Amino acid sequence: MRLSELSDRGGVSVATVKYYLREGLLPPGTPVTARQSDYGEEHLRRLRLVRALLTVGGMTIQQARDVLAVADDPAFGRHERVGIAAYMLGPHVSPPDPADPERARWDEVFAEMRGLLTEMGWQVFDEAPALATLTRAVMTLRSLGYNGATEHIRRYAEVMHPIAAEEYATMEEYPVLEEAIEAAVAYTMLYEPILLSLRRLAHEDVSAHLHGFSPPPPPEPPTPEPPISSS
Amino acid sequence: MRLSELSDRGGVSVATVKYYLREGLLPPGTPVTARQSDYGEEHLRRLRLVRALLTVGGMTIQQARDVLAVADDPAFGRHERVGIAAYMLGPHVSPPDPADPERARWDEVFAEMRGLLTEMGWQVFDEAPALATLTRAVMTLRSLGYNGATEHIRRYAEVMHPIAAEEYATMEEYPVLEEAIEAAVAYTMLYEPILLSLRRLAHEDVSAHLHGFSPPPPPEPPTPEPPISSS
Repeated sequence: MRLSELSDRGGVSVATVKYYLREGLLPPGTPVTARQSDYGEEHLRRLRLVRALLTVGGMTIQQARDVLAVADDPAFGRHERVGIAAYMLGPHVSPPDPADPERARWDEVFAEMRGLLTEMGWQVFDEAPALATLTRAVMTLRSLGYNGATEHIRRYAEVMHPIAAEEYATMEEYPVLEEAIEAAVAYTMLYEPILLSLRRLAHEDVSAHLHGFSPPPPPEPPTPEPPISSS
Repeated sequence: MRLSELSDRGGVSVATVKYYLREGLLPPGTPVTARQSDYGEEHLRRLRLVRALLTVGGMTIQQARDVLAVADDPAFGRHERVGIAAYMLGPHVSPPDPADPERARWDEVFAEMRGLLTEMGWQVFDEAPALATLTRAVMTLRSLGYNGATEHIRRYAEVMHPIAAEEYATMEEYPVLEEAIEAAVAYTMLYEPILLSLRRLAHEDVSAHLHGFSPPPPPEPPTPEPPISSS
């Protein structure tokens, strides 16, 4: 296909495709004339993946390059090739500087969360950005005096695991690796606001059922009687 | 108690307490001398609530005032008094302007989500900010060409509801209304990053169990044999 068709089908402008080509995020097409190249389906897949990394995943060009380098490296298997993209997704939280008085508290909470995951049999690396995010969130909760007991965190973990497993099963439906990486980035990011808004809506529902409304909402209008036929 | 003790126990500076008093977010204490007032436990509760609304909830002074006005109005019951605080929590998404070509799509997705919740028996108002957030998130997902089928959203809703019900049960443990509102704001906001990071960690675990590591991680060091006693 021509560059204009690639741009159309990839949902990005021609200028953007050219930019990705210049940055090496998209391999060059096969030259047809001095000024035109031909692009295949593999270009389209790569274009869609790059768009997902940058636009949905919020990555920098360099982060996207790093993701693609691992994706293209035959030394790695599917776990690393998809996982590197997941690791590049923000937010990225850093531990406090070793000189910071907060650091001891960080180390303690980090070790506690790490221990909880290990106890549950979860295979995650210490370097997982989500482990740092979790540590920071639990620290904040506790420092404000709220209940962030390990048992609560465990309960949430137990509830989230089967959802994550169901979600991951969907990833497995993409035999082409690039599509799987694109899907992992897109579904991870785009379902986050959906999950959170459903949680808030569920709170509202639970409260409404438990406490009712004051003043009560207007009653449903009565169902109109069917017209009586003059038989 | 004196203002300095109130500040200490409330976890905010004396200047902040004075600011809340000036803004009317905290009722004045009982004058003891021309320059000193006495504050009670109800001041401390209100101070903690105001801190949660502004700091954790990210509300403006005016939003906090609106929350407190409903909380103090005997015409409302617990559902509204706690719910108004939940409604003030961001993000707040607005529908596109009626002249915007995107508006028809918004109306369609909004009606679909509204219908889904009604079908599931969820009692939520059309005005729920989380319903707008959900609408926007589903629109984004679909406009990028990803699967945001209603059945998927329903599945997430079904999974989130029991978690939300468990969480809400914790709210019920606060007999004092101000503490319940504070808890609703704090736990809604502070558990969001915890839920999301656990979801990402669970994805990593599912992938690791399914695909293993390449290259494999170093084997666990062998358990040292217990020293043989020279019996």
